Amino acid sequence: MSEVAPFQRIAVIGLGVMGGSFARALTGTAAAPEVRGWSNDADECRAALYAGAVMAAPESLKEALRDADLVVLATPLQAACRLIPDIAEDPLRRDATIMDVSGLKTPVALVAAEAGVGSRFVGTHPMAGSEASGFAASRPDLFDGALVWIVAEPEAGAHTEKVEALWRSLGANPMRTSAAAHDRLMSLVSHLPQLTANSLAAALDNGGISPEHLGPGGRDMTRLAASNPEMWAGLLEGAHPDLVRALRTMAGNLQSMADNVEGGDVEAIVSLMEKTRIWRGA
Amino acid sequence: MSEVAPFQRIAVIGLGVMGGSFARALTGTAAAPEVRGWSNDADECRAALYAGAVMAAPESLKEALRDADLVVLATPLQAACRLIPDIAEDPLRRDATIMDVSGLKTPVALVAAEAGVGSRFVGTHPMAGSEASGFAASRPDLFDGALVWIVAEPEAGAHTEKVEALWRSLGANPMRTSAAAHDRLMSLVSHLPQLTANSLAAALDNGGISPEHLGPGGRDMTRLAASNPEMWAGLLEGAHPDLVRALRTMAGNLQSMADNVEGGDVEAIVSLMEKTRIWRGA
Repeated sequence: MSEVAPFQRIAVIGLGVMGGSFARALTGTAAAPEVRGWSNDADECRAALYAGAVMAAPESLKEALRDADLVVLATPLQAACRLIPDIAEDPLRRDATIMDVSGLKTPVALVAAEAGVGSRFVGTHPMAGSEASGFAASRPDLFDGALVWIVAEPEAGAHTEKVEALWRSLGANPMRTSAAAHDRLMSLVSHLPQLTANSLAAALDNGGISPEHLGPGGRDMTRLAASNPEMWAGLLEGAHPDLVRALRTMAGNLQSMADNVEGGDVEAIVSLMEKTRIWRGA
Repeated sequence: MSEVAPFQRIAVIGLGVMGGSFARALTGTAAAPEVRGWSNDADECRAALYAGAVMAAPESLKEALRDADLVVLATPLQAACRLIPDIAEDPLRRDATIMDVSGLKTPVALVAAEAGVGSRFVGTHPMAGSEASGFAASRPDLFDGALVWIVAEPEAGAHTEKVEALWRSLGANPMRTSAAAHDRLMSLVSHLPQLTANSLAAALDNGGISPEHLGPGGRDMTRLAASNPEMWAGLLEGAHPDLVRALRTMAGNLQSMADNVEGGDVEAIVSLMEKTRIWRGA
Protein backbone atom coordinates (compact mmCIF):
# COMPACT_ATOMS: atom_id res chain seq x y z
CA MET A 1 0.00 0.00 0.00
CA SER A 2 2.21 2.83 -1.22
CA GLU A 3 0.37 6.14 -0.94
CA VAL A 4 1.44 9.74 -0.93
CA ALA A 5 1.90 10.71 2.70
CA PRO A 6 -0.93 13.09 3.67
CA PHE A 7 1.47 15.48 5.41
CA GLN A 8 5.14 16.29 4.84
CA ARG A 9 6.02 18.34 7.89
CA ILE A 10 4.31 17.74 11.18
CA ALA A 11 4.68 19.73 14.40
CA VAL A 12 3.75 17.76 17.51
CA ILE A 13 3.01 20.11 20.42
CA GLY A 14 3.23 18.28 23.72
CA LEU A 15 5.54 15.26 24.02
CA GLY A 16 3.88 13.26 26.79
CA VAL A 17 2.41 9.79 26.41
CA MET A 18 0.06 10.90 23.59
CA GLY A 19 2.29 13.30 21.66
CA GLY A 20 5.36 11.13 22.23
CA SER A 21 3.58 8.01 20.99
CA PHE A 22 2.22 9.90 17.98
CA ALA A 23 5.68 11.18 17.04
CA ARG A 24 7.23 7.73 17.50
CA ALA A 25 4.50 6.11 15.41
CA LEU A 26 4.99 8.69 12.61
CA THR A 27 8.74 8.07 12.55
CA GLY A 28 8.04 4.39 11.97
CA THR A 29 5.80 4.82 8.89
CA ALA A 30 7.08 3.98 5.39
CA ALA A 31 7.07 7.56 4.08
CA ALA A 32 7.93 9.17 7.40
CA PRO A 33 7.25 12.91 7.34
CA GLU A 34 9.55 15.43 8.97
CA VAL A 35 8.45 15.61 12.60
CA ARG A 36 9.27 18.50 14.88
CA GLY A 37 8.35 18.42 18.52
CA TRP A 38 7.75 21.07 21.12
CA SER A 39 7.12 20.82 24.83
CA ASN A 40 7.34 23.25 27.72
CA ASP A 41 9.25 20.48 29.51
CA ALA A 42 12.90 20.57 28.34
CA ASP A 43 13.50 17.03 29.66
CA GLU A 44 10.76 15.67 27.42
CA CYS A 45 12.24 17.49 24.42
CA ARG A 46 15.61 15.90 25.10
CA ALA A 47 14.05 12.46 25.65
CA ALA A 48 12.08 12.71 22.37
CA LEU A 49 15.18 13.80 20.45
CA TYR A 50 17.30 11.09 22.02
CA ALA A 51 14.70 8.43 21.18
CA GLY A 52 14.58 9.61 17.57
CA ALA A 53 10.87 10.38 17.91
CA VAL A 54 11.37 13.90 16.54
CA MET A 55 13.97 15.28 14.17
CA ALA A 56 14.08 18.63 15.93
CA ALA A 57 12.74 20.05 19.17
CA PRO A 58 13.33 23.80 18.97
CA GLU A 59 12.98 25.93 22.07
CA SER A 60 10.56 28.32 20.42
CA LEU A 61 7.04 27.22 19.55
CA LYS A 62 7.19 29.50 16.52
CA GLU A 63 10.22 27.65 15.17
CA ALA A 64 8.53 24.28 15.77
CA LEU A 65 5.50 25.41 13.76
CA ARG A 66 7.39 27.01 10.84
CA ASP A 67 6.33 25.54 7.49
CA ALA A 68 4.37 22.72 9.14
CA ASP A 69 1.41 21.48 7.11
CA LEU A 70 -0.03 19.75 10.20
CA VAL A 71 0.10 20.80 13.82
CA VAL A 72 -0.89 18.18 16.37
CA LEU A 73 -1.96 19.56 19.74
CA ALA A 74 -1.15 16.76 22.17
CA THR A 75 -1.47 18.75 25.38
CA PRO A 76 -4.10 18.63 28.13
CA LEU A 77 -7.44 20.09 26.99
CA GLN A 78 -7.04 23.51 28.60
CA ALA A 79 -3.61 24.05 27.05
CA ALA A 80 -4.97 23.04 23.65
CA CYS A 81 -7.79 25.60 24.03
CA ARG A 82 -5.20 28.28 24.89
CA LEU A 83 -2.91 27.33 22.00
CA ILE A 84 -5.50 27.28 19.20
CA PRO A 85 -5.98 31.10 19.02
CA ASP A 86 -2.20 31.65 19.25
CA ILE A 87 -1.55 29.22 16.43
CA ALA A 88 -4.35 30.70 14.34
CA GLU A 89 -2.54 34.02 14.29
CA ASP A 90 0.96 34.22 13.09
CA PRO A 91 3.42 31.40 12.92
CA LEU A 92 1.53 28.62 11.16
CA ARG A 93 0.97 28.33 7.41
CA ARG A 94 -2.51 29.58 6.48
CA ASP A 95 -3.35 26.26 4.83
CA ALA A 96 -1.98 24.04 7.61
CA THR A 97 -4.27 21.50 9.23
CA ILE A 98 -4.77 21.84 12.99
CA MET A 99 -5.58 18.69 14.93
CA ASP A 100 -5.89 17.87 18.61
CA VAL A 101 -6.14 14.60 20.53
CA SER A 102 -7.90 15.71 23.71
CA GLY A 103 -10.68 13.79 25.41
CA LEU A 104 -13.52 16.27 24.82
CA LYS A 105 -14.40 17.67 21.41
CA THR A 106 -16.96 20.43 22.13
CA PRO A 107 -14.54 22.88 23.86
CA VAL A 108 -11.84 22.66 21.17
CA ALA A 109 -14.40 22.93 18.35
CA LEU A 110 -15.81 26.12 19.92
CA VAL A 111 -12.37 27.66 20.36
CA ALA A 112 -11.37 26.74 16.80
CA ALA A 113 -14.56 28.34 15.39
CA GLU A 114 -13.99 31.50 17.46
CA ALA A 115 -10.39 31.67 16.29
CA GLY A 116 -11.56 31.43 12.68
CA VAL A 117 -9.83 28.11 11.95
CA GLY A 118 -12.92 25.87 12.06
CA SER A 119 -12.51 25.10 8.34
CA ARG A 120 -9.07 23.54 8.89
CA PHE A 121 -9.46 22.17 12.41
CA VAL A 122 -9.93 18.41 12.90
CA GLY A 123 -10.66 17.23 16.42
CA THR A 124 -9.54 13.65 17.05
CA HIS A 125 -9.66 11.43 20.10
CA PRO A 126 -7.80 8.10 20.04
CA MET A 127 -9.28 5.53 22.41
CA ALA A 128 -5.82 4.65 23.68
CA GLY A 129 -3.61 5.98 26.39
CA SER A 130 -2.00 5.06 29.63
CA GLU A 131 -2.43 5.75 33.32
CA ALA A 132 1.29 6.57 33.20
CA SER A 133 2.26 9.97 31.83
CA GLY A 134 5.21 11.67 30.17
CA PHE A 135 7.36 10.77 27.17
CA ALA A 136 8.84 7.83 29.12
CA ALA A 137 5.42 6.11 28.93
CA SER A 138 5.03 6.66 25.16
CA ARG A 139 4.98 3.69 22.78
CA PRO A 140 5.21 3.61 18.97
CA ASP A 141 2.35 1.07 18.86
CA LEU A 142 -0.01 2.87 21.25
CA PHE A 143 -2.54 3.60 18.50
CA ASP A 144 -2.26 0.28 16.69
CA GLY A 145 -5.81 -1.01 16.29
CA ALA A 146 -7.25 1.87 18.32
CA LEU A 147 -10.56 3.49 17.48
CA VAL A 148 -10.04 7.22 16.82
CA TRP A 149 -13.05 9.54 16.98
CA ILE A 150 -13.00 12.30 14.35
CA VAL A 151 -14.99 15.51 14.85
CA ALA A 152 -14.80 18.28 12.24
CA GLU A 153 -16.94 20.85 10.45
CA PRO A 154 -18.15 19.91 6.96
CA GLU A 155 -16.04 22.78 5.53
CA ALA A 156 -12.93 21.04 6.83
CA GLY A 157 -13.58 18.09 4.50
CA ALA A 158 -10.19 17.91 2.74
CA HIS A 159 -8.31 18.37 6.01
CA THR A 160 -10.44 15.70 7.64
CA GLU A 161 -9.69 13.17 4.91
CA LYS A 162 -5.95 13.75 5.23
CA VAL A 163 -6.09 13.41 9.01
CA GLU A 164 -8.04 10.17 8.66
CA ALA A 165 -5.47 8.87 6.17
CA LEU A 166 -2.71 9.75 8.64
CA TRP A 167 -4.39 7.88 11.50
CA ARG A 168 -4.91 4.89 9.21
CA SER A 169 -1.21 4.91 8.32
CA LEU A 170 -0.53 4.51 12.07
CA GLY A 171 -2.77 1.43 12.23
CA ALA A 172 -5.73 3.20 13.86
CA ASN A 173 -9.38 3.13 12.86
CA PRO A 174 -10.81 6.64 12.45
CA MET A 175 -14.58 7.04 12.88
CA ARG A 176 -16.55 10.27 12.41
CA THR A 177 -19.00 11.58 14.96
CA SER A 178 -20.34 14.88 16.29
CA ALA A 179 -18.81 16.78 19.18
CA ALA A 180 -22.00 16.43 21.24
CA ALA A 181 -22.36 12.68 20.64
CA HIS A 182 -18.66 12.14 21.34
CA ASP A 183 -18.66 14.08 24.60
CA ARG A 184 -21.81 12.38 25.82
CA LEU A 185 -20.29 8.98 25.02
CA MET A 186 -17.03 9.87 26.79
CA SER A 187 -18.85 10.96 29.93
CA LEU A 188 -19.94 7.34 30.24
CA VAL A 189 -17.19 5.20 28.71
CA SER A 190 -14.21 7.23 29.92
CA HIS A 191 -15.01 9.80 32.62
CA LEU A 192 -17.29 7.57 34.69
CA PRO A 193 -14.80 4.65 34.85
CA GLN A 194 -12.01 7.11 35.69
CA LEU A 195 -13.86 8.68 38.61
CA THR A 196 -15.02 5.25 39.74
CA ALA A 197 -11.39 4.10 39.93
CA ASN A 198 -10.49 7.20 41.97
CA SER A 199 -13.47 6.66 44.31
CA LEU A 200 -12.57 3.02 44.81
CA ALA A 201 -8.93 3.83 45.48
CA ALA A 202 -9.98 6.49 48.00
CA ALA A 203 -12.33 4.03 49.75
CA LEU A 204 -9.56 1.40 49.93
CA ASP A 205 -7.04 3.95 51.20
CA ASN A 206 -9.65 5.01 53.76
CA GLY A 207 -9.93 1.38 54.92
CA GLY A 208 -6.17 1.11 55.42
CA ILE A 209 -5.55 -0.99 52.30
CA SER A 210 -2.34 -0.68 50.24
CA PRO A 211 -2.14 -1.59 46.53
CA GLU A 212 0.10 -4.57 47.35
CA HIS A 213 -2.83 -6.16 49.22
CA LEU A 214 -4.82 -6.31 45.98
CA GLY A 215 -5.35 -9.32 43.73
CA PRO A 216 -5.51 -9.06 39.91
CA GLY A 217 -9.13 -7.82 39.96
CA GLY A 218 -8.48 -5.06 42.49
CA ARG A 219 -5.34 -4.04 40.64
CA ASP A 220 -7.25 -3.66 37.36
CA MET A 221 -10.01 -1.76 39.15
CA THR A 222 -7.59 0.84 40.54
CA ARG A 223 -5.09 1.14 37.65
CA LEU A 224 -6.75 4.35 36.41
CA ALA A 225 -6.42 5.90 39.88
CA ALA A 226 -2.81 6.68 38.87
CA SER A 227 -3.94 8.84 35.92
CA ASN A 228 -2.67 12.38 35.50
CA PRO A 229 -4.91 14.78 37.49
CA GLU A 230 -3.74 17.77 35.43
CA MET A 231 -5.08 16.18 32.27
CA TRP A 232 -8.36 15.34 33.97
CA ALA A 233 -8.97 18.82 35.42
CA GLY A 234 -9.82 20.21 31.98
CA LEU A 235 -11.93 17.21 30.99
CA LEU A 236 -13.99 17.48 34.17
CA GLU A 237 -14.55 21.21 33.72
CA GLY A 238 -15.96 20.59 30.27
CA ALA A 239 -17.84 17.45 31.24
CA HIS A 240 -21.19 16.51 29.71
CA PRO A 241 -24.23 16.64 32.04
CA ASP A 242 -24.66 12.88 31.56
CA LEU A 243 -21.57 12.38 33.73
CA VAL A 244 -23.40 13.88 36.71
CA ARG A 245 -26.40 11.65 36.08
CA ALA A 246 -24.23 8.54 35.69
CA LEU A 247 -22.27 9.30 38.89
CA ARG A 248 -25.57 9.56 40.79
CA THR A 249 -26.81 6.30 39.24
CA MET A 250 -23.60 4.56 40.36
CA ALA A 251 -23.85 6.03 43.84
CA GLY A 252 -27.46 4.82 44.04
CA ASN A 253 -26.45 1.32 42.88
CA LEU A 254 -23.78 1.12 45.59
CA GLN A 255 -26.14 2.42 48.33
CA SER A 256 -28.71 -0.22 47.35
CA MET A 257 -26.03 -2.89 47.46
CA ALA A 258 -24.98 -1.72 50.94
CA ASP A 259 -28.64 -1.98 52.05
CA ASN A 260 -28.95 -5.42 50.48
CA VAL A 261 -25.78 -6.82 52.06
CA GLU A 262 -26.75 -5.32 55.43
CA GLY A 263 -30.27 -6.73 55.20
CA GLY A 264 -29.07 -10.14 54.02
CA ASP A 265 -31.02 -9.69 50.76
CA VAL A 266 -28.41 -11.04 48.40
CA GLU A 267 -30.89 -11.99 45.67
CA ALA A 268 -31.17 -8.41 44.37
CA ILE A 269 -27.39 -8.19 43.93
CA VAL A 270 -27.18 -11.61 42.30
CA SER A 271 -29.85 -10.60 39.83
CA LEU A 272 -27.92 -7.41 38.98
CA MET A 273 -24.79 -9.57 38.58
CA GLU A 274 -26.64 -11.87 36.17
CA LYS A 275 -27.56 -8.83 34.06
CA THR A 276 -24.06 -7.31 34.01
CA ARG A 277 -22.58 -10.72 33.22
CA ILE A 278 -24.72 -10.92 30.09
CA TRP A 279 -23.96 -7.27 29.26
CA ARG A 280 -20.20 -7.97 29.52
CA GLY A 281 -20.65 -10.89 27.12
CA ALA A 282 -19.58 -13.71 29.45
CA MET B 1 14.65 -29.09 45.37
CA SER B 2 13.64 -32.73 45.69
CA GLU B 3 11.25 -33.17 48.58
CA VAL B 4 8.84 -35.86 49.61
CA ALA B 5 5.45 -34.82 48.19
CA PRO B 6 3.21 -33.76 51.09
CA PHE B 7 0.25 -35.76 49.76
CA GLN B 8 0.04 -38.91 47.68
CA ARG B 9 -3.62 -39.07 46.77
CA ILE B 10 -5.62 -35.92 46.31
CA ALA B 11 -9.34 -35.59 45.66
CA VAL B 12 -10.33 -32.32 44.00
CA ILE B 13 -14.04 -31.61 44.49
CA GLY B 14 -15.29 -29.07 41.96
CA LEU B 15 -13.54 -28.80 38.58
CA GLY B 16 -14.22 -25.20 37.62
CA VAL B 17 -11.57 -22.55 37.11
CA MET B 18 -10.16 -23.01 40.65
CA GLY B 19 -10.39 -26.80 41.04
CA GLY B 20 -9.45 -27.37 37.41
CA SER B 21 -6.39 -25.14 37.67
CA PHE B 22 -5.38 -26.79 40.94
CA ALA B 23 -5.63 -30.28 39.41
CA ARG B 24 -3.71 -29.21 36.31
CA ALA B 25 -0.98 -27.57 38.43
CA LEU B 26 -0.64 -30.73 40.58
CA THR B 27 -0.28 -32.93 37.51
CA GLY B 28 2.63 -30.76 36.41
CA THR B 29 4.67 -31.09 39.64
CA ALA B 30 7.80 -33.27 39.77
CA ALA B 31 6.40 -35.90 42.15
CA ALA B 32 2.84 -35.63 40.88
CA PRO B 33 0.39 -37.22 43.31
CA GLU B 34 -2.58 -39.30 42.19
CA VAL B 35 -5.35 -36.80 41.51
CA ARG B 36 -9.01 -37.74 41.41
CA GLY B 37 -11.65 -35.21 40.48
CA TRP B 38 -15.33 -34.92 41.16
CA SER B 39 -17.90 -32.47 39.90
CA ASN B 40 -21.68 -32.45 39.73
CA ASP B 41 -21.21 -31.32 36.14
CA ALA B 42 -20.49 -34.37 33.96
CA ASP B 43 -19.12 -32.19 31.15
CA GLU B 44 -16.47 -30.77 33.45
CA CYS B 45 -15.50 -34.28 34.57
CA ARG B 46 -15.05 -35.32 30.95
CA ALA B 47 -13.10 -32.12 30.12
CA ALA B 48 -10.78 -32.64 33.12
CA LEU B 49 -10.16 -36.27 32.21
CA TYR B 50 -9.58 -35.42 28.56
CA ALA B 51 -7.11 -32.65 29.51
CA GLY B 52 -5.22 -35.09 31.75
CA ALA B 53 -5.88 -32.86 34.77
CA VAL B 54 -7.23 -35.80 36.77
CA MET B 55 -6.46 -39.50 36.57
CA ALA B 56 -10.02 -40.46 37.44
CA ALA B 57 -13.33 -38.69 37.76
CA PRO B 58 -15.70 -41.22 39.33
CA GLU B 59 -19.42 -40.55 39.33
CA SER B 60 -19.71 -41.09 43.08
CA LEU B 61 -18.23 -38.61 45.51
CA LYS B 62 -17.50 -41.50 47.87
CA GLU B 63 -15.35 -43.18 45.25
CA ALA B 64 -13.51 -39.92 44.53
CA LEU B 65 -12.68 -39.53 48.23
CA ARG B 66 -11.64 -43.16 48.89
CA ASP B 67 -8.13 -43.39 50.38
CA ALA B 68 -7.42 -39.69 49.68
CA ASP B 69 -5.01 -38.08 52.13
CA LEU B 70 -6.12 -34.61 50.99
CA VAL B 71 -9.50 -33.42 49.87
CA VAL B 72 -9.63 -30.02 48.17
CA LEU B 73 -13.02 -28.33 48.21
CA ALA B 74 -12.99 -26.12 45.14
CA THR B 75 -16.70 -25.35 45.00
CA PRO B 76 -18.59 -22.12 45.71
CA LEU B 77 -18.62 -21.26 49.43
CA GLN B 78 -22.12 -22.56 50.18
CA ALA B 79 -21.42 -25.93 48.57
CA ALA B 80 -18.16 -26.20 50.55
CA CYS B 81 -20.09 -25.53 53.78
CA ARG B 82 -22.59 -28.26 52.85
CA LEU B 83 -19.88 -30.76 51.90
CA ILE B 84 -17.68 -30.44 55.02
CA PRO B 85 -20.09 -32.27 57.40
CA ASP B 86 -20.74 -34.99 54.78
CA ILE B 87 -17.04 -35.55 54.28
CA ALA B 88 -16.39 -35.55 58.02
CA GLU B 89 -18.62 -38.60 58.38
CA ASP B 90 -17.97 -41.64 56.39
CA PRO B 91 -16.01 -41.84 53.23
CA LEU B 92 -12.79 -39.98 53.95
CA ARG B 93 -9.80 -41.38 55.85
CA ARG B 94 -9.85 -40.21 59.49
CA ASP B 95 -6.38 -38.67 59.11
CA ALA B 96 -6.99 -36.97 55.77
CA THR B 97 -6.45 -33.24 55.47
CA ILE B 98 -9.45 -31.16 54.40
CA MET B 99 -8.77 -27.94 52.55
CA ASP B 100 -10.94 -25.39 50.77
CA VAL B 101 -10.19 -22.46 48.44
CA SER B 102 -13.24 -20.26 48.97
CA GLY B 103 -13.15 -16.50 49.32
CA LEU B 104 -14.30 -16.25 52.95
CA LYS B 105 -12.67 -18.15 55.78
CA THR B 106 -14.99 -17.58 58.78
CA PRO B 107 -17.98 -19.62 57.50
CA VAL B 108 -15.90 -22.68 56.53
CA ALA B 109 -13.91 -22.56 59.80
CA LEU B 110 -17.16 -22.55 61.78
CA VAL B 111 -18.62 -25.46 59.83
CA ALA B 112 -15.37 -27.45 60.15
CA ALA B 113 -15.30 -26.90 63.94
CA GLU B 114 -18.97 -27.93 64.25
CA ALA B 115 -18.33 -31.05 62.17
CA GLY B 116 -15.44 -31.99 64.47
CA VAL B 117 -12.75 -31.70 61.79
CA GLY B 118 -11.22 -28.37 62.92
CA SER B 119 -7.96 -30.11 63.80
CA ARG B 120 -7.43 -31.29 60.21
CA PHE B 121 -9.11 -28.50 58.30
CA VAL B 122 -6.97 -25.90 56.52
CA GLY B 123 -8.76 -22.97 54.94
CA THR B 124 -6.89 -21.46 52.00
CA HIS B 125 -7.66 -18.61 49.64
CA PRO B 126 -5.45 -18.07 46.60
CA MET B 127 -5.45 -14.47 45.36
CA ALA B 128 -5.89 -15.67 41.80
CA GLY B 129 -8.85 -16.48 39.64
CA SER B 130 -10.68 -15.38 36.58
CA GLU B 131 -13.87 -13.59 35.67
CA ALA B 132 -14.44 -16.57 33.38
CA SER B 133 -15.71 -19.75 34.98
CA GLY B 134 -15.70 -23.48 34.38
CA PHE B 135 -12.95 -25.98 33.59
CA ALA B 136 -12.47 -24.36 30.16
CA ALA B 137 -11.08 -21.26 31.91
CA SER B 138 -8.64 -23.23 34.10
CA ARG B 139 -4.88 -22.81 33.65
CA PRO B 140 -2.00 -24.85 35.09
CA ASP B 141 -0.12 -21.64 35.96
CA LEU B 142 -3.05 -19.82 37.62
CA PHE B 143 -1.42 -19.95 41.05
CA ASP B 144 2.12 -19.24 39.94
CA GLY B 145 3.39 -16.38 42.09
CA ALA B 146 -0.01 -15.93 43.74
CA LEU B 147 -0.38 -15.04 47.39
CA VAL B 148 -2.40 -17.75 49.20
CA TRP B 149 -3.99 -16.94 52.55
CA ILE B 150 -3.88 -19.78 55.05
CA VAL B 151 -6.34 -19.95 57.95
CA ALA B 152 -6.25 -22.90 60.37
CA GLU B 153 -6.59 -23.78 64.03
CA PRO B 154 -3.32 -24.24 65.96
CA GLU B 155 -4.21 -27.94 66.49
CA ALA B 156 -4.13 -28.39 62.70
CA GLY B 157 -0.39 -27.57 62.68
CA ALA B 158 0.95 -30.63 60.85
CA HIS B 159 -1.85 -30.47 58.27
CA THR B 160 -1.21 -26.75 57.78
CA GLU B 161 2.49 -27.30 57.10
CA LYS B 162 1.75 -29.94 54.49
CA VAL B 163 -0.83 -27.72 52.79
CA GLU B 164 1.65 -24.85 52.74
CA ALA B 165 4.29 -27.12 51.22
CA LEU B 166 1.80 -28.19 48.57
CA TRP B 167 0.97 -24.59 47.64
CA ARG B 168 4.68 -23.78 47.48
CA SER B 169 5.25 -26.73 45.12
CA LEU B 170 2.69 -25.06 42.80
CA GLY B 171 4.68 -21.81 42.81
CA ALA B 172 2.37 -19.96 45.20
CA ASN B 173 3.27 -18.00 48.35
CA PRO B 174 1.26 -19.17 51.38
CA MET B 175 0.78 -16.64 54.18
CA ARG B 176 -0.99 -17.32 57.50
CA THR B 177 -3.67 -15.07 58.88
CA SER B 178 -6.84 -15.29 61.00
CA ALA B 179 -10.31 -15.86 59.58
CA ALA B 180 -11.51 -12.49 60.89
CA ALA B 181 -8.54 -10.53 59.50
CA HIS B 182 -8.81 -12.35 56.16
CA ASP B 183 -12.53 -11.74 55.76
CA ARG B 184 -12.22 -8.08 56.71
CA LEU B 185 -9.39 -7.66 54.18
CA MET B 186 -11.39 -9.44 51.45
CA SER B 187 -14.42 -7.20 52.01
CA LEU B 188 -12.20 -4.34 50.83
CA VAL B 189 -9.69 -5.82 48.37
CA SER B 190 -12.03 -8.28 46.66
CA HIS B 191 -15.74 -7.78 47.41
CA LEU B 192 -15.75 -3.98 47.07
CA PRO B 193 -13.97 -3.97 43.67
CA GLN B 194 -16.32 -6.75 42.48
CA LEU B 195 -19.50 -4.87 43.41
CA THR B 196 -18.01 -1.65 42.02
CA ALA B 197 -17.47 -3.36 38.66
CA ASN B 198 -21.08 -4.59 38.69
CA SER B 199 -22.39 -1.12 39.62
CA LEU B 200 -20.35 0.52 36.89
CA ALA B 201 -21.49 -2.02 34.29
CA ALA B 202 -25.12 -1.47 35.34
CA ALA B 203 -24.71 2.33 35.08
CA LEU B 204 -23.16 2.00 31.60
CA ASP B 205 -25.87 -0.42 30.48
CA ASN B 206 -28.42 2.05 31.86
CA GLY B 207 -26.83 4.80 29.72
CA GLY B 208 -27.13 2.70 26.56
CA ILE B 209 -23.42 1.82 26.38
CA SER B 210 -22.16 -1.53 25.04
CA PRO B 211 -18.82 -3.06 26.03
CA GLU B 212 -17.49 -2.51 22.49
CA HIS B 213 -17.75 1.25 23.06
CA LEU B 214 -15.18 1.01 25.86
CA GLY B 215 -11.47 1.83 25.68
CA PRO B 216 -8.80 -0.14 27.58
CA GLY B 217 -9.58 1.64 30.88
CA GLY B 218 -13.32 1.01 30.72
CA ARG B 219 -12.72 -2.62 29.72
CA ASP B 220 -10.46 -3.20 32.74
CA MET B 221 -13.01 -1.50 34.98
CA THR B 222 -15.84 -3.81 33.90
CA ARG B 223 -13.96 -7.10 33.45
CA LEU B 224 -15.14 -8.38 36.85
CA ALA B 225 -18.76 -7.65 35.89
CA ALA B 226 -18.63 -11.01 34.06
CA SER B 227 -17.85 -12.94 37.27
CA ASN B 228 -19.93 -15.93 38.31
CA PRO B 229 -22.98 -14.72 40.33
CA GLU B 230 -23.47 -18.18 41.88
CA MET B 231 -20.00 -18.03 43.43
CA TRP B 232 -20.63 -14.52 44.69
CA ALA B 233 -24.00 -15.24 46.31
CA GLY B 234 -22.37 -17.18 49.13
CA LEU B 235 -19.57 -14.67 49.60
CA LEU B 236 -22.06 -11.81 49.90
CA GLU B 237 -24.21 -13.71 52.41
CA GLY B 238 -21.17 -14.19 54.65
CA ALA B 239 -19.77 -10.69 54.01
CA HIS B 240 -17.90 -8.76 56.68
CA PRO B 241 -19.65 -5.60 58.02
CA ASP B 242 -16.77 -3.53 56.60
CA LEU B 243 -18.12 -4.22 53.13
CA VAL B 244 -21.30 -2.30 53.95
CA ARG B 245 -19.26 0.61 55.30
CA ALA B 246 -16.96 0.66 52.28
CA LEU B 247 -19.90 0.56 49.85
CA ARG B 248 -21.40 3.57 51.61
CA THR B 249 -18.03 5.40 51.53
CA MET B 250 -17.78 4.76 47.78
CA ALA B 251 -21.36 5.91 47.22
CA GLY B 252 -20.60 9.08 49.19
CA ASN B 253 -17.43 9.72 47.15
CA LEU B 254 -19.38 9.42 43.90
CA GLN B 255 -22.23 11.68 45.13
CA SER B 256 -19.67 14.34 46.12
CA MET B 257 -18.04 14.05 42.71
CA ALA B 258 -21.43 14.50 41.03
CA ASP B 259 -21.99 17.64 43.14
CA ASN B 260 -18.51 18.91 42.29
CA VAL B 261 -18.84 18.36 38.54
CA GLU B 262 -22.32 19.91 38.57
CA GLY B 263 -21.13 22.92 40.57
CA GLY B 264 -17.99 23.37 38.45
CA ASP B 265 -15.83 22.77 41.54
CA VAL B 266 -13.24 20.54 39.93
CA GLU B 267 -10.50 21.31 42.45
CA ALA B 268 -11.92 18.91 45.05
CA ILE B 269 -11.85 16.03 42.56
CA VAL B 270 -8.36 16.92 41.34
CA SER B 271 -7.11 16.91 44.93
CA LEU B 272 -8.66 13.45 45.49
CA MET B 273 -6.99 12.32 42.23
CA GLU B 274 -3.61 13.58 43.46
CA LYS B 275 -4.05 11.45 46.60
CA THR B 276 -5.11 8.28 44.83
CA ARG B 277 -2.28 8.72 42.32
CA ILE B 278 0.24 8.67 45.15
CA TRP B 279 -1.61 5.77 46.81
CA ARG B 280 -1.41 3.77 43.57
CA GLY B 281 2.33 4.45 43.40
CA ALA B 282 2.40 6.43 40.14
